[in-house]
Amino acid sequence: MTIQAYGAYAGDLPLEPIAITRRAPGAHDVQIDIAFCGVCHSDLHQVRAEWAGTLFPCVPGHEIVGRVSAVGAHVSRYQPGDLVGVGCIVDSCQHCAECDDGLENYCDHMVGTYNGPTADAPGHTLGGYSQRIVVDERYVLRIGHPAEQLAAVAPLLCAGITTWSPLRHWGAGPGKKVGVVGIGGLGHMGIKLAHALGARVVAFTTSDSKRQAALALGADEVVVSRNRAEMKAHTKSFDFILNTVAAPHDLDAFLALLRRDGTMALVGAPATPHPSPNVFNLIMKRRNLAGSLIGGISETQEMLDFCAQHGITADIELIRAEQINAAYERMLQGDVKYRFVIDCATLG
Amino acid sequence: MTIQAYGAYAGDLPLEPIAITRRAPGAHDVQIDIAFCGVCHSDLHQVRAEWAGTLFPCVPGHEIVGRVSAVGAHVSRYQPGDLVGVGCIVDSCQHCAECDDGLENYCDHMVGTYNGPTADAPGHTLGGYSQRIVVDERYVLRIGHPAEQLAAVAPLLCAGITTWSPLRHWGAGPGKKVGVVGIGGLGHMGIKLAHALGARVVAFTTSDSKRQAALALGADEVVVSRNRAEMKAHTKSFDFILNTVAAPHDLDAFLALLRRDGTMALVGAPATPHPSPNVFNLIMKRRNLAGSLIGGISETQEMLDFCAQHGITADIELIRAEQINAAYERMLQGDVKYRFVIDCATLG
Ligand SMILES: [Zn+2]
Ligand SMILES: [Zn+2]
Ligand SMILES: [Zn+2]
Ligand SMILES: [Zn+2]
Repeated sequence: MTIQAYGAYAGDLPLEPIAITRRAPGAHDVQIDIAFCGVCHSDLHQVRAEWAGTLFPCVPGHEIVGRVSAVGAHVSRYQPGDLVGVGCIVDSCQHCAECDDGLENYCDHMVGTYNGPTADAPGHTLGGYSQRIVVDERYVLRIGHPAEQLAAVAPLLCAGITTWSPLRHWGAGPGKKVGVVGIGGLGHMGIKLAHALGARVVAFTTSDSKRQAALALGADEVVVSRNRAEMKAHTKSFDFILNTVAAPHDLDAFLALLRRDGTMALVGAPATPHPSPNVFNLIMKRRNLAGSLIGGISETQEMLDFCAQHGITADIELIRAEQINAAYERMLQGDVKYRFVIDCATLG
Repeated sequence: MTIQAYGAYAGDLPLEPIAITRRAPGAHDVQIDIAFCGVCHSDLHQVRAEWAGTLFPCVPGHEIVGRVSAVGAHVSRYQPGDLVGVGCIVDSCQHCAECDDGLENYCDHMVGTYNGPTADAPGHTLGGYSQRIVVDERYVLRIGHPAEQLAAVAPLLCAGITTWSPLRHWGAGPGKKVGVVGIGGLGHMGIKLAHALGARVVAFTTSDSKRQAALALGADEVVVSRNRAEMKAHTKSFDFILNTVAAPHDLDAFLALLRRDGTMALVGAPATPHPSPNVFNLIMKRRNLAGSLIGGISETQEMLDFCAQHGITADIELIRAEQINAAYERMLQGDVKYRFVIDCATLG
């Protein structure tokens, strides 16, 4: 079937309306009529060919929510009308250690929701800036939120799970002091989730102007990272720091705030390297510098269920499809609180 | 009491005979007649004032073994004649979380065996290149090896525990694949200990000439890290890598060899930074880059007991005290298999 989407034909061209095709649902497939799609920084990097290997035409979007409109003969978990989501992953090998452990995000053959290999035309996956998508039920998530919250649920599919997975893996919860560096699309979810998990949450920002906003999101305390005295007051005190800032910056300033055996996990990769971290900072307290990539399917479901139960959604600004190029420019300025979401009804 | 030692009066002067004093044993003190003292790279950095804050006169040495020659009134664990050792730590605060957890090595008030604060003259601690030392029994270790192995036991007190602690902390043992980078004083102990712990051990060296030596130490396999094909064959396969190389080098080449959730721990800090590690390498498999500093007192005892049980000692070259300056030059050339140990009987 042919549907309407929004994408680009080259890295230096703006996004524009594109007609694309979706496969007819196979036996294990769920066909989803997309209601909303969140706008992630990865979308921008990929569609502008700032990362290697972008395939065109490129239709970004991996924070997808909508309703099931058809299911294949062997689909057992979903039926038409169900509220569902699709995140960053639409396929994986299903037989490696990572897949066996429910961590398809670390599978060497993980297929991204856009720009991944597929037998479907045009030979690479096309994402959620579109009216409809067809996905194997294994990679479809159930949404328990009320339908009227659906637009604000979309960013949970990438920004939510990308922060949830490391928070859970490194044990954020009651009795733990957790830092969140950066208050953007990822960071604002990190603050909300760490708070809801019961941790004491300290938000780090470079701008004093974000102090009230961070407190409103659930931070117990806000530290302006350029203020040396404020930083020093937290020396050796954090169990875990979630660092969402992709721009190159001084990691040592945050590593020094970890207590013994603490970990700082990076969820953004800078285009040019961070200054090399000071090895003494790692050695003197057996600290860890780690990375984390989105999350697995089962933990994404766990996160969605947790968010539905706790009434957690993202803070969003809803846009029409034709506003996407302008939205990208605003994202680059940090001018969004905290995630743009495309109303996919405007694609028609 | 006044005793003979070997040390330096300034960072740019060679080591020479120095007369120093030791306190009379207090109620909790053990007086040890030093038989042998290992020669660690830290000794060289400290005495040459390559690290900040060296206090002179400086008497290095923190791989100390000998016999108890007197004990204080309240000493319960040792008596004259016992074979004992002293490592890098001679005091700590005894009431912080680190001390409570038996990890005095991470105590903010840990007192090093040399160059640490003390009430004794001359106001800073003086190390094991000396005839005798007086240490609180809490920081004295029991040696279960036969007396004739004593010289080769000395390096266990720093090189041994510095590799043992991270190997244990990150779970080296049966079913685990462990890499050891660098085959020097630390690395040769890392190979022996990881092998004895039951891990599959791969030694990394820059020099093909060390291949046989590494196998003899207990490595199951040796990889020449400059050989790209050899390195690539181990991609994503290590549970843990112990990196003993302090010289700045490409960490990414080793991080890429870790499987998901694997850790590379650095036990040496470079004088100038390593090239900044690639964040993608950390993110794509949730890898960890960590540091580790010596080890706690109880785990040092555990390591010594394990080594006595398994017949493990260091490979050493015994020297006379007056050979120390020449030995330093040879250490800088990597010309020692694998640790110099001073025969402290030559101090008299
Ligand atoms: Zn994303
Ligand atoms: Zn897989
Ligand atoms: Zn040492
Ligand atoms: Zn302490």
